[in-house]
Amino acid sequence: MTTIERFMSLLPQEAAGRQVDAALITSESNRFYLTGFSSTSSAVLVFRDACYFLTDFRYAEAAERVIPAPCKVVCIKKMGESLQALLKQHRARGVLLENERLFLSQARLYEELFAGVGAAAIEDDTADRILAEMRSIKTPEELEKIKAAQKITDAAFTYILGKIRPGVTEREIALELEFYMRRQGADGVAFDLIVVAGENGSLCHGVPSGRTISRGDFVTMDTGVLLNGYRSDMTRTVAVGEASAEQKHAYDMVLKAQLAALEAIKPGIPCSQVDRAARNILEAEYKGAFEHATGHGVGVDIHERPRFSASDETITRPGMVVTVEPGIYLKGKFGLRIEDMIVVTQDGCENLTHSLKDLIIL
Amino acid sequence: MTTIERFMSLLPQEAAGRQVDAALITSESNRFYLTGFSSTSSAVLVFRDACYFLTDFRYAEAAERVIPAPCKVVCIKKMGESLQALLKQHRARGVLLENERLFLSQARLYEELFAGVGAAAIEDDTADRILAEMRSIKTPEELEKIKAAQKITDAAFTYILGKIRPGVTEREIALELEFYMRRQGADGVAFDLIVVAGENGSLCHGVPSGRTISRGDFVTMDTGVLLNGYRSDMTRTVAVGEASAEQKHAYDMVLKAQLAALEAIKPGIPCSQVDRAARNILEAEYKGAFEHATGHGVGVDIHERPRFSASDETITRPGMVVTVEPGIYLKGKFGLRIEDMIVVTQDGCENLTHSLKDLIIL
Repeated sequence: MTTIERFMSLLPQEAAGRQVDAALITSESNRFYLTGFSSTSSAVLVFRDACYFLTDFRYAEAAERVIPAPCKVVCIKKMGESLQALLKQHRARGVLLENERLFLSQARLYEELFAGVGAAAIEDDTADRILAEMRSIKTPEELEKIKAAQKITDAAFTYILGKIRPGVTEREIALELEFYMRRQGADGVAFDLIVVAGENGSLCHGVPSGRTISRGDFVTMDTGVLLNGYRSDMTRTVAVGEASAEQKHAYDMVLKAQLAALEAIKPGIPCSQVDRAARNILEAEYKGAFEHATGHGVGVDIHERPRFSASDETITRPGMVVTVEPGIYLKGKFGLRIEDMIVVTQDGCENLTHSLKDLIIL
Repeated sequence: MTTIERFMSLLPQEAAGRQVDAALITSESNRFYLTGFSSTSSAVLVFRDACYFLTDFRYAEAAERVIPAPCKVVCIKKMGESLQALLKQHRARGVLLENERLFLSQARLYEELFAGVGAAAIEDDTADRILAEMRSIKTPEELEKIKAAQKITDAAFTYILGKIRPGVTEREIALELEFYMRRQGADGVAFDLIVVAGENGSLCHGVPSGRTISRGDFVTMDTGVLLNGYRSDMTRTVAVGEASAEQKHAYDMVLKAQLAALEAIKPGIPCSQVDRAARNILEAEYKGAFEHATGHGVGVDIHERPRFSASDETITRPGMVVTVEPGIYLKGKFGLRIEDMIVVTQDGCENLTHSLKDLIIL
């Protein structure tokens, strides 16, 4: 069954008290997820028994080569007219829209278009929810793409170790990382790379600055690539020249927390349990120093469902790809984080990240 | 007057039949435009006589340093509660939302929050329209930032001329361009760079591929950077080794069309008139080969108002920054485009682009 066929089979009979006949998927990431085809403007119109990819002349030929049956590629002149014709042909009365990824002004346009052929726009979270749930379980093909993305990320870590030395700036390291990964074939970075050193390390989402690396700094690098539509995500912290006893101890504790979380992962448990495993270890000694969640899903987007957080009670299932990334952030002193990306398996998890995790002192 | 004070003074008394007391600006680009401060999550709440920048602990300190009075930075714990408190304090009954940049699900949240304190969310295009109009006229400070961005772009063109030769790929040229501009201090590229060669040149929005440059190719490069929140945009087409009589003639014609459009620009005319000036020259001989608009506004976003298009009747005004980019696209053969970025002045326009426009044969 193709991804789109699964989505077709999951369309509910009813949502928000209305009859559901179709869903119109317009966001870039959900369109790509359903069809495997990237484009800046197009729409996927999904019925229970038919499916159309509507796009213009710029994309139609390429789309036909990529998108599998039963989804039909329709080369449109005017999106509105084509949508109306198809809704009429299928006698649709209710059409789900995405809620989390559709702008108000676009929603208004679709409402009017649909009304013109007697159909209602259904604006609740049904389509978002179904797609987020589907996307949380990766197929073997998706997993291969994520592994390929992580492979470049692992190689970049080895490469960058040779470039980190006193005198270079956070920004130079970030650029070197990105250029290396792009030269290795990455289509882009998975997110704005984070490289923070010394006291900047306490900013868990810091922007690489002109700060120069000094002896005794921890350097935290949060990196990942976009490759064939899928992303990777990894963080490593290394020490430059030397590490104090305090730094070494903090590193040991984060690593211990990270290993405990990895150990805890198996199918059938609430996600919060994984978060708890990491947090238990850091909580007493480093109270208030680890405030973010332990992990998040990764796939087409860099943040997907589920989350390894205190509040996410989603039950883990094989195929979920999630990061495991506890950290300690000591304001004005230093910070560190160790992040792997794993996939939940039948009896535990497989670690997709292969970079060394012992403390490296360069 | 600060940008935010101008926006405060432009809030209408009424919109969509409702009393307007405030506007809530939540999109990243409009927040940045109003405050000069970049952040991933925050909101600007604007009354006629007061203004608040609501953000969390990660940004509050930095925001205070950047955002001028009368806008007050409020460090929030919970966005919803802070919004409600301020709306109550100012006895607001109607609050404008952005329409073109707000997701449905977010709009629903704000509707509920506002209703909780007796205020209505006004969901029409009023806020979008006012901001788009303000943004279309650049202040001297904005203009300086755009010029700085273009300076890096011009330098990159000179740099890349030394790298284009038979055997390199479109993708390699695109990476070299990007890496050079980033090393020169660009915060990023202004858009996904376009580098297309030979017959790929007929794709006006082609993605750089593994296609190798050959003798006799036209190579079209559409490049620009993001620097301090503002963007640049320039296209040049060069020939490799030699150019056929057909290529030379097409180049001459596009250059002629581009110069005619530049010549036509002055304040007080409909934008369509500039498009017409370019199109008149290409229409007869190259019918159907120049289908896109002649230009678009550039600023915080890469596509802003106004457009030099057949349908844009906006009257030009000093301070508008717009591209001028006619092209010819001959399917299966070659394509070319010449693009400058100009600012409308009191009596014509100033060209912000300084790269050579005569046909370069490398």
